[in-house]
Amino acid sequence: MRTIDLNADLGESFGRWVLGDDEAMLELVSSANVACGFHAGDPLTLLRTVKAAVARGVRIGAQVGYRDLAGFGRRYIDMESAELTAEIIYQIGALDGLARSAGTRVRYVKPHGALYNTIVSDNVQAAAVVAAVVAYDPGLPVLGPPGSAFLRLAAEAGLAGVREAFADRGYTATGTLVSRRLPGAVLHDPDEIASRAADLVRHGILRAVSGETLTISVDSICVHGDTPGAVAIARAVRDRLVDGGVTVRAFVG
Amino acid sequence: MRTIDLNADLGESFGRWVLGDDEAMLELVSSANVACGFHAGDPLTLLRTVKAAVARGVRIGAQVGYRDLAGFGRRYIDMESAELTAEIIYQIGALDGLARSAGTRVRYVKPHGALYNTIVSDNVQAAAVVAAVVAYDPGLPVLGPPGSAFLRLAAEAGLAGVREAFADRGYTATGTLVSRRLPGAVLHDPDEIASRAADLVRHGILRAVSGETLTISVDSICVHGDTPGAVAIARAVRDRLVDGGVTVRAFVG
Amino acid sequence: MRTIDLNADLGESFGRWVLGDDEAMLELVSSANVACGFHAGDPLTLLRTVKAAVARGVRIGAQVGYRDLAGFGRRYIDMESAELTAEIIYQIGALDGLARSAGTRVRYVKPHGALYNTIVSDNVQAAAVVAAVVAYDPGLPVLGPPGSAFLRLAAEAGLAGVREAFADRGYTATGTLVSRRLPGAVLHDPDEIASRAADLVRHGILRAVSGETLTISVDSICVHGDTPGAVAIARAVRDRLVDGGVTVRAFVG
Amino acid sequence: MRTIDLNADLGESFGRWVLGDDEAMLELVSSANVACGFHAGDPLTLLRTVKAAVARGVRIGAQVGYRDLAGFGRRYIDMESAELTAEIIYQIGALDGLARSAGTRVRYVKPHGALYNTIVSDNVQAAAVVAAVVAYDPGLPVLGPPGSAFLRLAAEAGLAGVREAFADRGYTATGTLVSRRLPGAVLHDPDEIASRAADLVRHGILRAVSGETLTISVDSICVHGDTPGAVAIARAVRDRLVDGGVTVRAFVG
Repeated sequence: MRTIDLNADLGESFGRWVLGDDEAMLELVSSANVACGFHAGDPLTLLRTVKAAVARGVRIGAQVGYRDLAGFGRRYIDMESAELTAEIIYQIGALDGLARSAGTRVRYVKPHGALYNTIVSDNVQAAAVVAAVVAYDPGLPVLGPPGSAFLRLAAEAGLAGVREAFADRGYTATGTLVSRRLPGAVLHDPDEIASRAADLVRHGILRAVSGETLTISVDSICVHGDTPGAVAIARAVRDRLVDGGVTVRAFVG
Repeated sequence: MRTIDLNADLGESFGRWVLGDDEAMLELVSSANVACGFHAGDPLTLLRTVKAAVARGVRIGAQVGYRDLAGFGRRYIDMESAELTAEIIYQIGALDGLARSAGTRVRYVKPHGALYNTIVSDNVQAAAVVAAVVAYDPGLPVLGPPGSAFLRLAAEAGLAGVREAFADRGYTATGTLVSRRLPGAVLHDPDEIASRAADLVRHGILRAVSGETLTISVDSICVHGDTPGAVAIARAVRDRLVDGGVTVRAFVG
Repeated sequence: MRTIDLNADLGESFGRWVLGDDEAMLELVSSANVACGFHAGDPLTLLRTVKAAVARGVRIGAQVGYRDLAGFGRRYIDMESAELTAEIIYQIGALDGLARSAGTRVRYVKPHGALYNTIVSDNVQAAAVVAAVVAYDPGLPVLGPPGSAFLRLAAEAGLAGVREAFADRGYTATGTLVSRRLPGAVLHDPDEIASRAADLVRHGILRAVSGETLTISVDSICVHGDTPGAVAIARAVRDRLVDGGVTVRAFVG
Repeated sequence: MRTIDLNADLGESFGRWVLGDDEAMLELVSSANVACGFHAGDPLTLLRTVKAAVARGVRIGAQVGYRDLAGFGRRYIDMESAELTAEIIYQIGALDGLARSAGTRVRYVKPHGALYNTIVSDNVQAAAVVAAVVAYDPGLPVLGPPGSAFLRLAAEAGLAGVREAFADRGYTATGTLVSRRLPGAVLHDPDEIASRAADLVRHGILRAVSGETLTISVDSICVHGDTPGAVAIARAVRDRLVDGGVTVRAFVG
């Protein structure tokens, strides 16, 4: 029987501004990519999210990003390597501190937004992120897209890599995400998204926006927590998988 | 033979803005209160300061403060307890992450600026800081002024308290620091400051701005790293102590 | 026939985080207190809100606050006068710049959150805000609570003062707002709020949480834009007033 | 007799962190590019710098940049046009507000750091900056490098363009600035820099790092205010020009 991890970006509220329904999403996913305060997430929000994850046995990952609250980490920043490495270590440590205080630990690292997209192909920034994880704890797996510079450099550095795909994002024919500035970037129909997730897990295939069928092998599926109908979508994905005999389970034990 | 700890606030540069001479100060002190990014200190600065401390065997403490770069953490903020606790845990964790990546650990916690002054008497914020340290690691000592609500509540919570005085700050007759907004708040003469430090360590006394002699027992003396002539002052203090037979040694082993 | 101004806090989204429904609120109010980027409001949000206000003939005021995105300007900060004055001028100028680019101007100033509450009684911060408005443009009216240090000092400095009350906030028996940290701070029932607004405008009375009837004379009523059901509440207030023969009209021409 | 404008970046301190000696620089330059709070400059610093400029008859320009205090505006950020335009208007307005309160006005606009470098060739961001100036006040000149997309698009939009060169920065053979991440980016010898300035003004030539002689016609020369020896360099440049019969005068009357 096939197993798969479901992950979602959580802890992305900031002070007065609420984003997503963390409690509801934590009932559905097995891994929570919790923001670390640089693109989103004030410390109290993060602590509450971490505690809510612990209460449900959901694994916690550090969702690290550019220091850019105004841009939600979705704008590429031309950072120097040493600076980026230090910022990533800082973020992992901060979230891990909150996790320790809640009786758990950060179990993996997943880059966010523009950083995630950049290190698909930018070897310099990818290496800077890998260096940060190695420096903090070389036992931490990293989550990223299959075929990325990030996962390749992580493997070379001895880090475990976890391959993921997005059930609710559009893909180009070359297997990269459609930019959020373009149409087709984000899918909204729960049924369609659930079908894509099922195809991914059972057949290792994904339909690109241009119609091609991509062959893709993944360990985790990301569902978004901040889109309209996010909870309904995540539930549809989970139900479809479970109904199809798939076990939803975190990739870390 | 008497021993004393010398501590200084370091890692307080931010990006392009340089403050203090961390390398020079680290040759003189035994404990480095390293900023945590909320009142000062970008992650790369912090990492460099931590590595420089490790290279000299100087112990690292988390210098936690209000989230207020524009005010350098020197303005009281009326924060709620849960928020303050989470922010302190976040900061300790972030610096501890950088410390781990440099092969060491955060060994103690010292509040900064307006937070330091507030928790001399504000039981609610003092308790929030204590709760953060207890939640993160109850084995971490906290550094603060003798007689403060902070050290009292820390002791009640089972935390080790380290009492300190400032050789280069003016004191009122009641033993509190003269506000930075008033004259006499900061001393500048190395010889006078060294004498005050020697009196503190050998006789347990300190002269207040109003002329009274305060009796005060401390485990550590703070010298500032960011005032004009900071390095010369710290050197004068250290030399005077060492010449007087005092051993400068960190309070944590 | 009686006329009254209806004002609401708008432009309080920040980047990815949406707060309130500015477009809908602008159909109902006569004056828009637009955030200025220090407690909320990124520049693009502000520009869009300003343009939407212009399109509906709604007057624009600068909703100035403490520099505290994480706290949404709701936490008192112990700022020095000169600093506060400069920060207020900066905020008014920034919003006025966006307003000029949209063919209009900032027409009044209203402090936000903890600053608003502080200058009810804190003469030093109240004077600092007054000094900022005088320095920027002594022709700008200021909006505040009747009986406040702020409106008194504004009048002494020659500024026009506009007295307001909150239809949807609880009041103490002494006529101050119930703290947001206490129960009864915010009302939610549209019918009750509309009745309070009508009593305020037609009879100059307001019921305190403790049951007393306060006599209060105001030029404007504030309705919130960011609470659940904000639009329905504002509509109920406006409809009740209009049905009662009251004309809703901005206090500036 | 030849006249030239001397401009410098000022107002770049932030809270506790002091950068440059604004008072001394204002004795030497004719135009002050005052930061606007996004890459540097807290409001009180800006107000003081503006007042000091007014006292010396130095013209004030808005030195607009990316929102990036941690990176001092020196890191490219991939911003969308509408966002960038709004951020530039906000910054000009904020500084103009402080200028109005000091009895003067912002007289021109100069982009800073990575934004300056980006819009040499990036038509989209250049157009976004031009759109901001046009929207705020089409009578404001813009300062930039000759041959840049920025000055070309500004001219097409009807803005006056002021061409400048840096006496203390290295140039490539194609007339662009050597990146700050490369050697030769910044010159330090006052005599050499003064000679370059004199050659620029009298002969319209500039030596590239690779040895070529660039022909370049400029209306203003930029001297830095934040490098070691900045004041001495600016004084050497000014003295050399004046001794050579050149009049240092602002390009705006």
